[in-house]
Amino acid sequence: MRASPHPFDPLTPEEITLAAAIVRPLFSDPNPIFRVITLQEPPKKEMIPFLEHEHRGEVPGSVPARCARVQLLVRSEGGVSQFFEIRVNLSQRTVTGEEHLEGKHSHVDPTYMKEVEAACLADERVQAGIRTLELPDGATVCVEPWTYATDGENDMSERITMCYFYMRLVGNQDANYYAYPLDLCAEVSDKLQVTKLYRLPSTANERIHTESRPFDRRKIQKASDSEYHPGLRPPPRNTTKPYHVVQPGGPSFETHGNHVAWEKWSFRVGFNYREGLTLHDICYDHRSLFYRLSLSEMFVPYGDPRAPYQRKGAFDLGNDGAGINANNLRLGCDCLGTIRYFDAWHNTVSGVPMKLFNVVCCHEQDDGILWKHTNFRTQNAVVTRSRILVLQTIITVSNYEYIFAFHFGQDASIHFEVRATGIVSTVPNNIGEKVPYGTIVAPGVLAPYHQHLFSLRIDLAIDGQKNSLMVEESRPMPINDPGVHNPYGVGYSTFSSVIEEEGGFDLDFAKNRTFKFVNEEKINPISLTPVGYKLVPCYSQMLLAHPDSFHARRSEFGRHAVWVTRHDDEELFPSGRHTMQSLGGEGIASAIEKHQVTGAARRVRGEDIVVWHTFGSTHNPRIEDWPVMPTEKMIVGLKPVNFFARNPALDVAVSTQEKNRSVLAPNEGENDGLACCPKF
Amino acid sequence: MRASPHPFDPLTPEEITLAAAIVRPLFSDPNPIFRVITLQEPPKKEMIPFLEHEHRGEVPGSVPARCARVQLLVRSEGGVSQFFEIRVNLSQRTVTGEEHLEGKHSHVDPTYMKEVEAACLADERVQAGIRTLELPDGATVCVEPWTYATDGENDMSERITMCYFYMRLVGNQDANYYAYPLDLCAEVSDKLQVTKLYRLPSTANERIHTESRPFDRRKIQKASDSEYHPGLRPPPRNTTKPYHVVQPGGPSFETHGNHVAWEKWSFRVGFNYREGLTLHDICYDHRSLFYRLSLSEMFVPYGDPRAPYQRKGAFDLGNDGAGINANNLRLGCDCLGTIRYFDAWHNTVSGVPMKLFNVVCCHEQDDGILWKHTNFRTQNAVVTRSRILVLQTIITVSNYEYIFAFHFGQDASIHFEVRATGIVSTVPNNIGEKVPYGTIVAPGVLAPYHQHLFSLRIDLAIDGQKNSLMVEESRPMPINDPGVHNPYGVGYSTFSSVIEEEGGFDLDFAKNRTFKFVNEEKINPISLTPVGYKLVPCYSQMLLAHPDSFHARRSEFGRHAVWVTRHDDEELFPSGRHTMQSLGGEGIASAIEKHQVTGAARRVRGEDIVVWHTFGSTHNPRIEDWPVMPTEKMIVGLKPVNFFARNPALDVAVSTQEKNRSVLAPNEGENDGLACCPKF
Repeated sequence: MRASPHPFDPLTPEEITLAAAIVRPLFSDPNPIFRVITLQEPPKKEMIPFLEHEHRGEVPGSVPARCARVQLLVRSEGGVSQFFEIRVNLSQRTVTGEEHLEGKHSHVDPTYMKEVEAACLADERVQAGIRTLELPDGATVCVEPWTYATDGENDMSERITMCYFYMRLVGNQDANYYAYPLDLCAEVSDKLQVTKLYRLPSTANERIHTESRPFDRRKIQKASDSEYHPGLRPPPRNTTKPYHVVQPGGPSFETHGNHVAWEKWSFRVGFNYREGLTLHDICYDHRSLFYRLSLSEMFVPYGDPRAPYQRKGAFDLGNDGAGINANNLRLGCDCLGTIRYFDAWHNTVSGVPMKLFNVVCCHEQDDGILWKHTNFRTQNAVVTRSRILVLQTIITVSNYEYIFAFHFGQDASIHFEVRATGIVSTVPNNIGEKVPYGTIVAPGVLAPYHQHLFSLRIDLAIDGQKNSLMVEESRPMPINDPGVHNPYGVGYSTFSSVIEEEGGFDLDFAKNRTFKFVNEEKINPISLTPVGYKLVPCYSQMLLAHPDSFHARRSEFGRHAVWVTRHDDEELFPSGRHTMQSLGGEGIASAIEKHQVTGAARRVRGEDIVVWHTFGSTHNPRIEDWPVMPTEKMIVGLKPVNFFARNPALDVAVSTQEKNRSVLAPNEGENDGLACCPKF
Repeated sequence: MRASPHPFDPLTPEEITLAAAIVRPLFSDPNPIFRVITLQEPPKKEMIPFLEHEHRGEVPGSVPARCARVQLLVRSEGGVSQFFEIRVNLSQRTVTGEEHLEGKHSHVDPTYMKEVEAACLADERVQAGIRTLELPDGATVCVEPWTYATDGENDMSERITMCYFYMRLVGNQDANYYAYPLDLCAEVSDKLQVTKLYRLPSTANERIHTESRPFDRRKIQKASDSEYHPGLRPPPRNTTKPYHVVQPGGPSFETHGNHVAWEKWSFRVGFNYREGLTLHDICYDHRSLFYRLSLSEMFVPYGDPRAPYQRKGAFDLGNDGAGINANNLRLGCDCLGTIRYFDAWHNTVSGVPMKLFNVVCCHEQDDGILWKHTNFRTQNAVVTRSRILVLQTIITVSNYEYIFAFHFGQDASIHFEVRATGIVSTVPNNIGEKVPYGTIVAPGVLAPYHQHLFSLRIDLAIDGQKNSLMVEESRPMPINDPGVHNPYGVGYSTFSSVIEEEGGFDLDFAKNRTFKFVNEEKINPISLTPVGYKLVPCYSQMLLAHPDSFHARRSEFGRHAVWVTRHDDEELFPSGRHTMQSLGGEGIASAIEKHQVTGAARRVRGEDIVVWHTFGSTHNPRIEDWPVMPTEKMIVGLKPVNFFARNPALDVAVSTQEKNRSVLAPNEGENDGLACCPKF
């Protein structure tokens, strides 16, 4: 018998089944399509007293009810699908909310996408279009469906899918078809009709796309230039010798269900179809730091201005879902050492629980030196190595991969690392022509410029729920100011201000502008300043699309690097709850503006607040990103600032060879000097 | 018999002995003080043809002569020390240059510093001053000598040492005396006389420092709060279990003397008293990238405006030397895995070779995922782990430590990682009072704000010697411009310009401003753009001291983040050759201005050029940095941009559990839910 789930635990398979059973009778459609059955997290106001009990090791006075949020498509009498969200109290087996999501679209449905592909390929006009390309013998055409990024051109109440065409030259299903983008594009309606077929631009000046042209055989690359799969590549370099991480005493972490304890850290692992990995109730040494940490949204807009590429702009969380696209992680490949995997539960279209295996891994890593000092008088060195705990998840969104990892440090820091990898999106291009918004990565293959914008949502609980966002800058002290003592011109000091109202803010490293999360009610008795954590941001260019563009209206979080809002249980997503073909105006800026317009401007000083950090990369591909991209790292840090009484890693044991057992490399002999011209 | 050294090899002990023997007869002083005997690297114009032969595996036509640079102090008849630099051709046993460095000072002499300490403590006035402090029984006073940062107050032709006073409360020599800064300061002359004695400011308003006050016993901290040495601390946490890096096939690198080959990398390790670790002739897959990489200078100015703290401004390379302060690295402590250590040779004051053990370590690390793609149609995942090669050196400069490491990647990237650790510099402060230019880290202990500014010198050889610095920005395309096709407002493109003349430039992440090192003569046949590498900068605040201050005049490189100059064999140091008590005007900006004023403005487009990256941190200490600081990481990257024909890591073998042998963590059982309140 399984014990009751913790309020932060994702739904159990039994709960998924129960939720479906409660929802089914509400509709006449006997076979509704269950898009998602997920945990509706308890209201924070119920969770705080619960957690306070729990932290003290007491039995909680009352346990928040288990609730589910169910999204489903229901066929009405005319055969039209209607989109609903139902909220269910599982503890009481009652329906607590029912919302008809008119005009909204559900996140990507892979079953439907496969139907789109098949319908597109079966279409006669498409087949005729393909024939005009005069493809090489043995080539297979592959249709890559893309969600439609709103551009003002079509009625967005209907689902429209953009179909791009690629070709496989070799029979192997793992051949990299992105190496052969074809000069063809189709639009497919919600009812699986090909509504438009046209060719793609192939030069910077080509703005009207008429008939397709024959495939240019000069575009055919040597397989070794365009393939990444080892089965299609020459033998790899064999110069890298084995490297094992061995932990003879087992891992230093302990897990109990979804609770993880490691060193002085304590937190709970959550997981849902949209955000994927989430972290809850993060404490260090019995002190609360963060109520919830999550990647809350991503937007990937493309910079190629030529139609139809304005429709390439992917909300990889809102449209696709980091949870349902999470990889099944494999021992020794995705993770090294002693690994604990977490599975997750999703649901089938008929509402049956479906297990997602190994979607999160938890393991330790050595992270170099944590602190060191050598007393120069005694020559005694004290050195402590850093161990980190990694919680990692990896998602695949069509051509692209993201590796998301939270790193917990013994010094009470948390780092959120994003690695981008996978295959860059490609479009056809005339051989020998350049465009100013893309890189030619192979003959006739253009990798258009694009951005990756992430929003890290930081639900604060710095030593309690009443927190403030403080902005600090380091500024030179004036000279020649009689009120300021700076006779040598070397003085500088810090200037702090506390943000009073919700808003968005920019970074400025030239001023050492630092965003601190502080609890103004708790003063550090030594430093005499409020206890806090600081954001170590990832300096990134914000959204480049014009403010009036649909891209900008739909991804408001891309305007500023740091946002602060009052906590609201319903505000988890900075581009709104429904991003698929969204029209904009539902994001974080609109929410803030709405409060300002109605005079309800929400104060954020000493309140329960959430900080959102926008970061990412302006990814103008390099040819080195082809045919598969070496990981591009982006790192955000959360570090204590006058939160503790001293270095929280001071009690980490000193490193010794006795424990760490390293070995000397064989020395190939003394200096051979000129006798040894490097052979490379 | 040892083979001839390679031209880039540091001097051998035999060469050090020979250089001293050649120099000794030049002076009448029978016992000159040899400050340094180091390699004078061969002129680049001689090295390039040599390297071209070597790269082709040919016997070089001619080998550049082995030359030494010798700095020494010579007592003249009046007993005054004179400072000389002598250049010696060791191959021909001739003196090739002799420079009397009048008005210049040699780098820090630890023997002299010990004499200063002793003289200071022996001084009667100092002893009387200490008595007025009425220190606790058993306390030992410790004098910490500091080099004098020029402030316009004294004649800089004489060496002056600032002496700060601390106290040890426990007898242990490893006790952290920085926890007890005393209210006393002395100045000691070149002739070891205490010339001034005064007390230090203890509040923000205290500007005149008169007699010292008794020691405030409320400042005495619990040992566990102020000590870092394990012998003086309570038992450490015992929660971290062993973690071994095991490489059963040995390391993947090969060394021959100072030559290192790893994966497709080839380079030579250099080392000298000032810069410490240097890297030479860095090639990837037989193609030249960098002629020389080095940390060229560091400046650590303090922001406390009160006298005498304007004199705290350390050039840790120019004044102290990264080489002679390099730690003896220890297996399993400073480095994990299979390690190759490099030793170095320095000299004693009498010109005898002296070995510095284990100053550089070379080892591999796993660095997570290198690239991955999962084909969503076949669900076949291909994942390759990243191995990096680390070349690390660690230096101690009095209270502080720096860990410098070059990371070589299989994707042809290089990262230079700096970690700052050690003990922050402290000064006394009244209990309960705050100042706006420092953090109180313990009762009565102020850790003043300061900056760490590093200059990474990048001597380019991107596919040859003729290189250019290109600046690229990503900018939105205009809307409503009839000449620009951007109908949806989503377009953006890159704008590049090539720097024509020497100068300093700033970073701007908001424009995605990217500095690229390109070879305009070599066009990538696929991307149709010049081959290049880019700087992935460390975004940092530049020098805060006023431009007229001595700090600013002495550390010109702190004005801008990126500098470009024409290569000059003699220009290795962006604050000039002699930084000790320097007056300013000898740095990189002055050199560039000089060329401009004389009309000899040096063009840098398509020339042999050097790029210098200034980065660092504005370090406003946290209490978490006390009593020893968790490492603060700063990372600079050098990455290929359209240099190769594709991902250079494409041929790295796919990761397999068979090779990597990871294990599953034991699972502590199913979800215990509420039954398991975290015990932390």
